[in-house]
Amino acid sequence: MAQKIWKSSAVLADGREIIYFDESPATGRAEVADPRDLHAESAGTGELRWDPLLEEWVAFAEHRQERTFLPSAGDCPLCPSRPGHNTEVPASSYDVVVFANRYPAMPAGRGQCEVVCFTPEHDSSFAELTERRAGTVLTAWADRTAELGRAANVEHVYCFENRGPEVGVTLHHPHGQIYALPFVPPRTRRLLASAREYQRRSGQNLFDSMLAAEIADGRRIVARNEHWSAFVPEAAHWPFEVLIFPANRVPDLAALDEGAAGSFAAVYLDVLRRLDRLFGTPMPYMAAWQQAPSRAAAARADLALHMQVMAVRRTAVKQKFRAGTESGAEVWSNDVLPETAARMLREA
Amino acid sequence: MAQKIWKSSAVLADGREIIYFDESPATGRAEVADPRDLHAESAGTGELRWDPLLEEWVAFAEHRQERTFLPSAGDCPLCPSRPGHNTEVPASSYDVVVFANRYPAMPAGRGQCEVVCFTPEHDSSFAELTERRAGTVLTAWADRTAELGRAANVEHVYCFENRGPEVGVTLHHPHGQIYALPFVPPRTRRLLASAREYQRRSGQNLFDSMLAAEIADGRRIVARNEHWSAFVPEAAHWPFEVLIFPANRVPDLAALDEGAAGSFAAVYLDVLRRLDRLFGTPMPYMAAWQQAPSRAAAARADLALHMQVMAVRRTAVKQKFRAGTESGAEVWSNDVLPETAARMLREA
Repeated sequence: MAQKIWKSSAVLADGREIIYFDESPATGRAEVADPRDLHAESAGTGELRWDPLLEEWVAFAEHRQERTFLPSAGDCPLCPSRPGHNTEVPASSYDVVVFANRYPAMPAGRGQCEVVCFTPEHDSSFAELTERRAGTVLTAWADRTAELGRAANVEHVYCFENRGPEVGVTLHHPHGQIYALPFVPPRTRRLLASAREYQRRSGQNLFDSMLAAEIADGRRIVARNEHWSAFVPEAAHWPFEVLIFPANRVPDLAALDEGAAGSFAAVYLDVLRRLDRLFGTPMPYMAAWQQAPSRAAAARADLALHMQVMAVRRTAVKQKFRAGTESGAEVWSNDVLPETAARMLREA
Repeated sequence: MAQKIWKSSAVLADGREIIYFDESPATGRAEVADPRDLHAESAGTGELRWDPLLEEWVAFAEHRQERTFLPSAGDCPLCPSRPGHNTEVPASSYDVVVFANRYPAMPAGRGQCEVVCFTPEHDSSFAELTERRAGTVLTAWADRTAELGRAANVEHVYCFENRGPEVGVTLHHPHGQIYALPFVPPRTRRLLASAREYQRRSGQNLFDSMLAAEIADGRRIVARNEHWSAFVPEAAHWPFEVLIFPANRVPDLAALDEGAAGSFAAVYLDVLRRLDRLFGTPMPYMAAWQQAPSRAAAARADLALHMQVMAVRRTAVKQKFRAGTESGAEVWSNDVLPETAARMLREA
């Protein structure tokens, strides 16, 4: 099941690391020079501030106001370099590549922000990847989760993708991001609190119970294989929200066994392609790996790794907005019943 | 300070209540018939579901998929009625009017969703209201907070405005909404938890301390008068987020004294007009009254009423999106430092 991957790394002009995940032996990755005249200054700015109202950290990064904004294909910084156009990737080709974000949202020394390019094809999308390539992306996510999670200042590794300008994408090239955070994010803290309370009341694991109930009910299942189940949760917050759980609970991507790691791509690509077919137009979405904290042992036992896909279109021409009720009160309303959403996705 | 208001109510064709808040004596409001052939069915659908992952309620309302979507001015359902065009407001004129939403987000019997029309002028905005009219809107909010909060099934009254299609507005006519909720919203629960913890640690009220610190510091103050202070919080989540607190802590709008109630409009209009001037284009925002729960006495003592304005534009052409980090991890990054935001607003 597991695919062999050739991993190699190099250093960009301003000192950032770049890591290639190749599907066939690639030599000389480290020797390809980055000829750009880059300054390392941007990484030094920014700060974290504590919000006493919600008891959470907020990251400030004024330099990000200047970040590249929807460049044309010819100016894309995520394409491989070519004569006359030096990009963030010095090599002339790649399969999957990861490098530190030039415009990090987190301040220097407080975690790490990385970019993951899913393919060198500028006009492609995750849904259009081959199963092999999607598997390579999963390998990169798992590799970075393990490595970044070992750093002393990292409490959580968050891998995600924003797809579509409707959700704020500033670069069209198919890519995701990884934030290695110096704190456990608020949503993870909430999931852990819910899981602990559920365990206390029922003696069972919240995520195990939810997955078993969804499989038994069946109405909200979207796709399944031996190792993974994809469903619309009974109280979905987004019009087309899909959770994808492995059959065997693990804390994070690094803990997946070969069978699960090797069969995620099939289910995930199936879900993404159904989302794109739903309204006959590319579906804007946010995809988030919900993982356990990197080190707290109790939390790692409680929280079950899962992928959360949040698709924001509610009809072919209308979008779900997180407006006044969601933003000001955190009260969600959803115009699409989860059973309807799952049926539409199964039929797409 | 306090303005006299004439309040009267009537019943719409499908049984919904409509309440007029008039600035001069208006007679016969109750006698204006609603000639439309409306069915009350939509109000009966929808349901609340409990999300065990985040421990919160989600409202489902499939009928809202059909709600009126950005109609032209001639078809606006919030304008006064005129010959040949019967709207949600049977009268031929009004000052401020409140009625039950025809497409409620909450299911029947589980709270109430109301619409507040700020002015009969279709092409106006809250920022363009006179101080008198803005004061009448505040009177309506306070009146509804008190009345809805007395209902046995209501735990919280949430008054808010979405302004601009960028934040999902489906009707251009200047209006806000009121949700009388059958539960305390998650954000209010979080504010209360923070306030309790702060009180336990410091012996002081969180909101009193924050307001005193902002006034003492001064760098993030946007506008002030005798009774109100508007500032960008030190850990603002939005590019231009403004909190407006009364000098004397009260739990909700119904508890404001005459002096505070009579002088809110001046500060609020000043803030909204600065936001519109900032980039020379109408600022899309969400405005939310953060109020205490309707009945829990301890919570009413801890939580301080304040207005939260969340403006989403970060430059003249760029918008803050609540994307993958905010949605999937609840980790916020903000490209505008609060001190910069406050200075820009003071200079606007």
